[in-house]
Amino acid sequence: MSPGGRRPGDSGTRDAILDAARSGFARAGYDATTIRGVAREAGVDPALVHHFFGSKEAMFTAALSLPLQPGEVVPALLAGGTEGLGERLVLLFLSLWDSPATREPLLGLIRSAVSHERAAAMLREFLTAEVLGRVASALDVPDAALRANLVGSQMIGLAMLRYVIEVEPLASAEHAAIVAAVGPTVQRYLTGDLT
Amino acid sequence: MSPGGRRPGDSGTRDAILDAARSGFARAGYDATTIRGVAREAGVDPALVHHFFGSKEAMFTAALSLPLQPGEVVPALLAGGTEGLGERLVLLFLSLWDSPATREPLLGLIRSAVSHERAAAMLREFLTAEVLGRVASALDVPDAALRANLVGSQMIGLAMLRYVIEVEPLASAEHAAIVAAVGPTVQRYLTGDLT
Repeated sequence: MSPGGRRPGDSGTRDAILDAARSGFARAGYDATTIRGVAREAGVDPALVHHFFGSKEAMFTAALSLPLQPGEVVPALLAGGTEGLGERLVLLFLSLWDSPATREPLLGLIRSAVSHERAAAMLREFLTAEVLGRVASALDVPDAALRANLVGSQMIGLAMLRYVIEVEPLASAEHAAIVAAVGPTVQRYLTGDLT
Repeated sequence: MSPGGRRPGDSGTRDAILDAARSGFARAGYDATTIRGVAREAGVDPALVHHFFGSKEAMFTAALSLPLQPGEVVPALLAGGTEGLGERLVLLFLSLWDSPATREPLLGLIRSAVSHERAAAMLREFLTAEVLGRVASALDVPDAALRANLVGSQMIGLAMLRYVIEVEPLASAEHAAIVAAVGPTVQRYLTGDLT
């Protein structure tokens, strides 16, 4: 640790790392931001960043207050097998968005990606690095990256109509009705015939 | 026409009406804005607004530079019958978004709806008044409004991933591949079993 640098016990250390991470991701995007670079900007040892967050992905989701990490969610969803995967994914998505505490950061991410090219690039790089590869290697199907894109398109569109534009009757529909309608779409995108 | 008001021949008359319409829609939303109110704000006779635009819907799409009117598009798409309707809708949507001239206003509409609650309300009211009812009465199926919502969710999500966040491989995918993947989703939302 550099002389005068922060130490693990400092109450503000974790916050300082998160500030440096937010600023780095916003400026340089996901790919070009490193744990080493964030540590340097926060004035701490890289080992300390690893200690707090363990990975760049975890640092990113903490910096943006995102309610989950793809590295944890994707394996958990796939552990139940591919049958009913579409329905489980839609239900998880609805439960995250229907809780105000987790909805706000997700909404913030969509808002910045729509308004700022750099935020869109950051989200694109994050999805490519942390989500698409995981889904592709977990599903033994052709065109896995395109399939993950298609699932993402249906999920983001659902969020847009239900939570952003709030069109009825979708905005007030029960989870069960949405799962019945959208679950088979997601299932086909993941495992069905797309040609 | 009021004394000193604008006349049909004035070169700036149509622009003045569009300015008043944009301001009215942004301030009061779609439902509460009337041709009469826009005419008053623009200092012209309501008959002149009818002469230029014919309907509130046409005034709205002209004010926002939208490339089409639901009142024209929905009947045209449905005239081909329900078979293949999903694929035709996806192809029309892609052709609008892949032309920069029509993409920009659509992107502007999404950006404002995501950033401003009033713009979201305006878009919600417009979709409810001009799109959902038309689809509902054209399709002889139960839950037509929810079906139209679901189609909208897949279409907006496709635009978000392909044109806003620009995730690969979806951003560079050929129309034929997207139509093959997404067409059946839209077809099922419109005419299939959603329970």
